[in-house]
Amino acid sequence: MSGARFSKTYQGELRVPMREIGLSDGTVFTVYDTSGPYTDPAVETDVTRGLSPLREQWILDRADVVGYGGRQVKPLDDGYRDQASWKRAHAVPRLGARRQPLRAAGGPVTQLAYARRGVVTKEMEFVAVREGVEAEFVRAEVAAGRAIIPANVNHPESEPMIIGRNFLVKINANIGNSAVTSSIEEEVEKMTWAIRWGADTVMDLSTGRDIHTTREWIIRNSPVPIGTVPLYQALEKVGGVAPDLSWEVYRDTLIEQCEQGVDYVTVHAGVRLSYVPLTVGRKTGIVSRGGSIMAAWCLAHHRENFLYENFEEMCEILASYDVAFSLGDGLRPGSIADANDEAQFAELRTLGELTGIARSRDVQVMVEGPGHVPMNKIKENVDLQRELCDDAPFYTLGPLVTDIAPGYDHITSGIGAAMIGWYGTAMLCYVTPKEHLGLPDREDVKTGVITYKIAAHAADLAKGHPKAQEWDDALSEARFEFRWEDQFELSLDPGTARSFHDETLPAAPAKTAHFCSMCGPKFCSMRISHDLRAAEGMRAKSEEFVAGGGEVYVQLTDRPLLPREERGQSEV
Amino acid sequence: MSGARFSKTYQGELRVPMREIGLSDGTVFTVYDTSGPYTDPAVETDVTRGLSPLREQWILDRADVVGYGGRQVKPLDDGYRDQASWKRAHAVPRLGARRQPLRAAGGPVTQLAYARRGVVTKEMEFVAVREGVEAEFVRAEVAAGRAIIPANVNHPESEPMIIGRNFLVKINANIGNSAVTSSIEEEVEKMTWAIRWGADTVMDLSTGRDIHTTREWIIRNSPVPIGTVPLYQALEKVGGVAPDLSWEVYRDTLIEQCEQGVDYVTVHAGVRLSYVPLTVGRKTGIVSRGGSIMAAWCLAHHRENFLYENFEEMCEILASYDVAFSLGDGLRPGSIADANDEAQFAELRTLGELTGIARSRDVQVMVEGPGHVPMNKIKENVDLQRELCDDAPFYTLGPLVTDIAPGYDHITSGIGAAMIGWYGTAMLCYVTPKEHLGLPDREDVKTGVITYKIAAHAADLAKGHPKAQEWDDALSEARFEFRWEDQFELSLDPGTARSFHDETLPAAPAKTAHFCSMCGPKFCSMRISHDLRAAEGMRAKSEEFVAGGGEVYVQLTDRPLLPREERGQSEV
Repeated sequence: MSGARFSKTYQGELRVPMREIGLSDGTVFTVYDTSGPYTDPAVETDVTRGLSPLREQWILDRADVVGYGGRQVKPLDDGYRDQASWKRAHAVPRLGARRQPLRAAGGPVTQLAYARRGVVTKEMEFVAVREGVEAEFVRAEVAAGRAIIPANVNHPESEPMIIGRNFLVKINANIGNSAVTSSIEEEVEKMTWAIRWGADTVMDLSTGRDIHTTREWIIRNSPVPIGTVPLYQALEKVGGVAPDLSWEVYRDTLIEQCEQGVDYVTVHAGVRLSYVPLTVGRKTGIVSRGGSIMAAWCLAHHRENFLYENFEEMCEILASYDVAFSLGDGLRPGSIADANDEAQFAELRTLGELTGIARSRDVQVMVEGPGHVPMNKIKENVDLQRELCDDAPFYTLGPLVTDIAPGYDHITSGIGAAMIGWYGTAMLCYVTPKEHLGLPDREDVKTGVITYKIAAHAADLAKGHPKAQEWDDALSEARFEFRWEDQFELSLDPGTARSFHDETLPAAPAKTAHFCSMCGPKFCSMRISHDLRAAEGMRAKSEEFVAGGGEVYVQLTDRPLLPREERGQSEV
Repeated sequence: MSGARFSKTYQGELRVPMREIGLSDGTVFTVYDTSGPYTDPAVETDVTRGLSPLREQWILDRADVVGYGGRQVKPLDDGYRDQASWKRAHAVPRLGARRQPLRAAGGPVTQLAYARRGVVTKEMEFVAVREGVEAEFVRAEVAAGRAIIPANVNHPESEPMIIGRNFLVKINANIGNSAVTSSIEEEVEKMTWAIRWGADTVMDLSTGRDIHTTREWIIRNSPVPIGTVPLYQALEKVGGVAPDLSWEVYRDTLIEQCEQGVDYVTVHAGVRLSYVPLTVGRKTGIVSRGGSIMAAWCLAHHRENFLYENFEEMCEILASYDVAFSLGDGLRPGSIADANDEAQFAELRTLGELTGIARSRDVQVMVEGPGHVPMNKIKENVDLQRELCDDAPFYTLGPLVTDIAPGYDHITSGIGAAMIGWYGTAMLCYVTPKEHLGLPDREDVKTGVITYKIAAHAADLAKGHPKAQEWDDALSEARFEFRWEDQFELSLDPGTARSFHDETLPAAPAKTAHFCSMCGPKFCSMRISHDLRAAEGMRAKSEEFVAGGGEVYVQLTDRPLLPREERGQSEV
């Protein structure tokens, strides 16, 4: 964070990372940190080697997983027909020696299984410190299915985090090289950039070539959980022809991703054949990529969705690696007109059914939500999801509260995200200014993440999270006391705040000026307010004096609250 | 609106301006337009002469006003001590011949007075066409005090607009040369820029020198109502020393501004002496400039606020020109911590009392609101204002839903603005990215206005405004049908939408591509959705066929929904 004075610190035995903001009075203010080792000057990172495996020993100590050869990585995983063309085309260097994948030696190795057995895992302890709650509370929330800790045993580099309505609201940033543009290096860079600004998880939505290799780079270098949509890669493997998809290709892809360390997967198992006709009368049909692919498959074969039909087998696979379900809302509305319609809610009922099945197999599960929803219909989404999915964490994309502002959909969706977060959504999937128009670049990723940090934090405040309120108080106190540098440092984006101030009042002394640049010295209400406090003190003293029979307020009328000699700009 | 194809049109006998968006199928979509004659190529504008006086004849035809000499403009009005220094310093050319000011010949000449007498004025007719409602409805809402039409008889250049919960939600943009920077030309340019993007009213918050002249330029060139805070100029006249203010200086300033044509004035009459101590325990004291000035005055003299004490005389003045009150919330919270506190609500009760007095004198009145409010405390503000102020239009600044994002306060406040608009606020005062940090430049004004258009429109949608829904539908249909140019043109900012699309897919044919640039041709859900509709149609046909005993679905499985030959990028 360019020019910010904050530093990294670690709390407790498990060395839980925190961001420390040094204030001008020598105290520090501590906030949640998602940026990983990249912001620790004491740690040297090398993207070609990946991060050090923080959780490896914790996982091995539980003695419930075994290493195995794993599925062989094939040219087709990266979109190539044979070894020769794969090697020829593949300019990207391979990462260092591959770690042997782990999987359950026996039953489920999930955080949910442990929580239900009453065991507080190291991951739960870590999360407890991070959130400032008791570890037992974390365990209980996970056990109840109200929260999940996405933590694949094959992604030991991750710093555990929790997604649930009774914790801080989280945000996800999507990255991914679409078929049209982008490169592996760019995607890894986008991931580290997104977490620097506060992304709690990152979804790799890559399509096109080099999907496997891109993902390997991202996971090995990511301190946050990585989510994917395995269907995208499966579709690549069948040449992009939706009807050619099969459970076999999908299953193989799912295992491939579980072995790599993906922490949660979006699965569009709720798009049932019989729901597809419900979308025909819509303004914007099906707008979820996964949803439209599965709908195409269902219609082409006139068969039930193979993800729905094979859901129990999928549960067994995910349980062996502790990969969480993110039950995709393939029929989410793509316009205000389509919000909360029968197609959407029919699928939600199925997601509720699937939530129950996943939980019965000890698989962690969250549920995805819309999309495009006018403000008056947002709460219904949360209430219904809660009821139908038995309090499983809700994970929504926005929602956008109007369709008329392409180019500004971080804002149209940030409004809906803040509201739905307040109503109880556990994680908010960001939307960048490029939504509906193009692929986000570095600046768009930053804008999207910061907009969503605002939405998530506003939701935390509205939910009465004490730590959230402390942050606002710290910044507002700095503002009121004209501690400009503290105000900048406590903001979500110190560099931008500082540069905006510089534009109007560039000189260094202005950073200690006792007025704001908007109003100038005479009109600064905060300054007058300070003078009033002094006057108030004086009035109290005067009243004591009056009680003793003296004259009151004379001093005040004689002495303007803004003495003439201070009204100039001499302080600037 | 760089590169937009929309054009200007006028509806009805009163020539009510509308923005017409030409769509690719030859139809037009019409939206509310605030941009005035500046976007009409048939009108030649000259800022040194001002706009033509649209309402002049309407006003004169009512035969209830008389022209008079008016108060003499003095050097002090512009912040100069004598004629010599005024002329010397005054580089800015004066506007052409000054129009003689008008004022009531007898009783009140306000829209409220007419509405109560059952008269539908030309202004009400104009507003009715603009809003798409019956003129009688407009009259009834004004008569009830639930809406106001700010329309000073000395601002005949303005195109009438209405502010009330049962009409489209409006937005205000603040401009003004602060003591620190800016120039007259810049401020006029900011006004025309702000209305081009959709500002419904503009407040001139100038301080420092040349206030009178700046305002003259702004009003003469403004097709939207202009609001001010007369206290700022009054304070300049007493050298910036709050305790030196007096009713006499203020009254003189108020008349000066009424004669110029200011349409509504923010008056901080609710900051009563006894409320000031209620702010002492706050995190951020008093953050309203006007509030802090009046609080300083009250404390310095230990006397009741002279604006409160002279409120009835003020009503008489405003009634003679039809200037509306905007009752200022001088004690609004300046931080999340201070929201909805006793100081704020004590003042609101007084604003309710003053609303009643103003209405009893036939003066139009709206009431200002916060500020900084967490999401969970927003609704209480609207409900209480409605109750205490008997449904007078509410006009709020944001509110910001968190304090931690200086540099992004258009977003933190856009969230609160959308919500409070939905709850019933009639006008939203914009906040730019520079809030708390510096003065907005051209780009900041645009960003602020568009963010607030989003908030206002989202509120209209949530309130079920049919015209609002039509706009979203038109854009979403264009999106679904891959009518890229129509999608751009229908957006709030066509140039930005188009340029974002250009970044990823710059070639002209991409504007007709049947997929989005985010996903590429294979993964485009909208494209697949189209194919599904075709398939659905086919399925229906197949079912008819089945009813006749034939084979079904064979065609579908044989024919992938995305035929191989179309999967390439040959269409791009």
